[in-house]
Amino acid sequence: MERALETTTGTEDGAGSGAGDGDGGLDLTLDAVRLTARLVDIPSVSGDEKRLADAIEAALRTLPHLRVDRYGNNVVARTALGRAERVVLAGHIDTVPVAGNLPSRLEGGELWGCGTSDMKAGVAVQLRIAATVPAPNRDLTFVFYDNEEVAADLNGLGRLAQAHPDWLAGDFAVLLEPSEGQVEGGCQGTLRVRLHTAGQRAHSARSWTGENAIHAAAPILARLAGYEPRRPVVDGLEFREGLNAVGIEGGVAGNVIPDACTVTVNYRYAPDLTEEQALEHVREVFADCGVVRFEVDDSSGPARPGLDHPAAAAFVAAVGGEVRPKYGWTDVSRFSALGVPAVNYGPGDPSLAHKRDERVETALIPHCEERLRAWLTA
Amino acid sequence: MERALETTTGTEDGAGSGAGDGDGGLDLTLDAVRLTARLVDIPSVSGDEKRLADAIEAALRTLPHLRVDRYGNNVVARTALGRAERVVLAGHIDTVPVAGNLPSRLEGGELWGCGTSDMKAGVAVQLRIAATVPAPNRDLTFVFYDNEEVAADLNGLGRLAQAHPDWLAGDFAVLLEPSEGQVEGGCQGTLRVRLHTAGQRAHSARSWTGENAIHAAAPILARLAGYEPRRPVVDGLEFREGLNAVGIEGGVAGNVIPDACTVTVNYRYAPDLTEEQALEHVREVFADCGVVRFEVDDSSGPARPGLDHPAAAAFVAAVGGEVRPKYGWTDVSRFSALGVPAVNYGPGDPSLAHKRDERVETALIPHCEERLRAWLTA
Repeated sequence: MERALETTTGTEDGAGSGAGDGDGGLDLTLDAVRLTARLVDIPSVSGDEKRLADAIEAALRTLPHLRVDRYGNNVVARTALGRAERVVLAGHIDTVPVAGNLPSRLEGGELWGCGTSDMKAGVAVQLRIAATVPAPNRDLTFVFYDNEEVAADLNGLGRLAQAHPDWLAGDFAVLLEPSEGQVEGGCQGTLRVRLHTAGQRAHSARSWTGENAIHAAAPILARLAGYEPRRPVVDGLEFREGLNAVGIEGGVAGNVIPDACTVTVNYRYAPDLTEEQALEHVREVFADCGVVRFEVDDSSGPARPGLDHPAAAAFVAAVGGEVRPKYGWTDVSRFSALGVPAVNYGPGDPSLAHKRDERVETALIPHCEERLRAWLTA
Repeated sequence: MERALETTTGTEDGAGSGAGDGDGGLDLTLDAVRLTARLVDIPSVSGDEKRLADAIEAALRTLPHLRVDRYGNNVVARTALGRAERVVLAGHIDTVPVAGNLPSRLEGGELWGCGTSDMKAGVAVQLRIAATVPAPNRDLTFVFYDNEEVAADLNGLGRLAQAHPDWLAGDFAVLLEPSEGQVEGGCQGTLRVRLHTAGQRAHSARSWTGENAIHAAAPILARLAGYEPRRPVVDGLEFREGLNAVGIEGGVAGNVIPDACTVTVNYRYAPDLTEEQALEHVREVFADCGVVRFEVDDSSGPARPGLDHPAAAAFVAAVGGEVRPKYGWTDVSRFSALGVPAVNYGPGDPSLAHKRDERVETALIPHCEERLRAWLTA
């Protein structure tokens, strides 16, 4: 899931209807929908992924064509067939807190429950490919990682990239994040800066003896209100930027001319810019707006769609459909930083992620599985 | 003191060097400087004025030409000579918290200590006039009140005005607030309003699906930054207005387009406007600035200088010097609301009020006393 707008709170664990069937084992011969239900019924809220990681590791170790490695609750399984290309299929196994929406239930062509869309349906597809494609046309690396839904420094993919970058090596990566069975290419970068203005305190009854820092922020807001965001085409995909104030604060007391005001600005930018270029752009936009201090609060680089890579082009041709740009920031950027082009492609619906009524359209799960299999066995 | 910019914190009570000399009595035959020192050495932080009120009441009760009334820790003493006019001399007896600046000390022509300028020097002048002018040319009312330095609803003068408005009746009032021995006429009004803008939340990665309430505040800040305050002449005095943001807040989270922003604006206005006119003006200023809600936070009306009143004119002629407008809001407005024209005139220095190094130029204390006596005995 891209970085969340809001996460559903609540830690109620509604599981209990035979999740794991006593031994916690996963039967990879189940169809992808049933396998998704089994994965959903093993709760794995961020920080509590061990039971599910154990089950995944155990199931993968039964597959002789895979080498299985584990780091914390991150499991990596790889073929070593000496193919010309290597493809990474990655997915996070954690979920946001359970919100009374476990165990899973099948109803009207949809599988309901915490983590169905985000992203155990995708994980089920990974496992089905692992189990059913023993001799793929490209070497495969399956990555199952933890702590995607929480603070960035806990992210299992990021920690794997630091500890075992070789486990993540590849020519192309598919992140099975929910994308409704459409390929979403790359991701936009996000930069958050604090723009500070200054003034001089005074009693508001004699305001002319001071200088108003909130008034000094007027050019910043005017610039933001009049900003025309770019819609650049990168590797054939039209991205859509945004430059927005996400916070503003200023004021000392009801009778005091304020001497400080801070506008927090978030720039979401297309992957034709580097982090450095994005920062430079924001500096330029506000260069003549009376900013006395420019403070970088947060920066996560973008990822190019990478669709010009042969493996990616073949992937898009195989799975079909229209390729869309990914506006939000996702872990494809981590692959991009490792030099591995990556796309999002998964059966879930991102608009249902993190919601109490989270669900997944069951037909999309085998659809994605089949499309991937077609690509990897053509 | 006009409504304070900041109050010194700390509650250390440094008194102890003979304040009250055992019986807490006040000797009104002392000269005004020594009497000020005695008053200062009886600590009377807001809410803790009883000891000083007792001492003042006891001292006044020894004066046969005065009728003394008490309401809480407010003491009112009046002559009843049947004069054509009645003048009110008023002062608050409380101080901001002691800040290690007691007991008082005399040094280099200045008396140092908490409450010296604000406003026990003025209270000493009141007491000296009460004691030494038994047959004034105008009937006199002396008002000593509590809780001026704290919340408006506790203000002793306001509470007297509600409970015993007849005690405050008069043709003209002098508030002995610090004004460096200059007459300060009237006071400006103060109006505080909250201007709310609205938008629609969205993930900042897809900002075009939302509406930014902080950007919507741009016209408000532009209007404030470009506002030209009036400097109207009222009853011969030039006032100086100000319209300022004193606070701004908006924002939900670092990745959310905010749906609300609030700018708090303080309008300090000259006494040619009523509270209603001031409110109407602020509404007009921001009429086309996208404000979705206009919320009055605080309003205290102004006071006209009232210098056209014969008693006031005679007062100004007697005390001499240039009359200045009072920019800050003071309790003269409470008299104005009762129909009593009022000015500020006292020996203290307002810029030293509420400070750890508070002090008063001793020469100004007998100067003010003499000027008042001259006016009341001419």
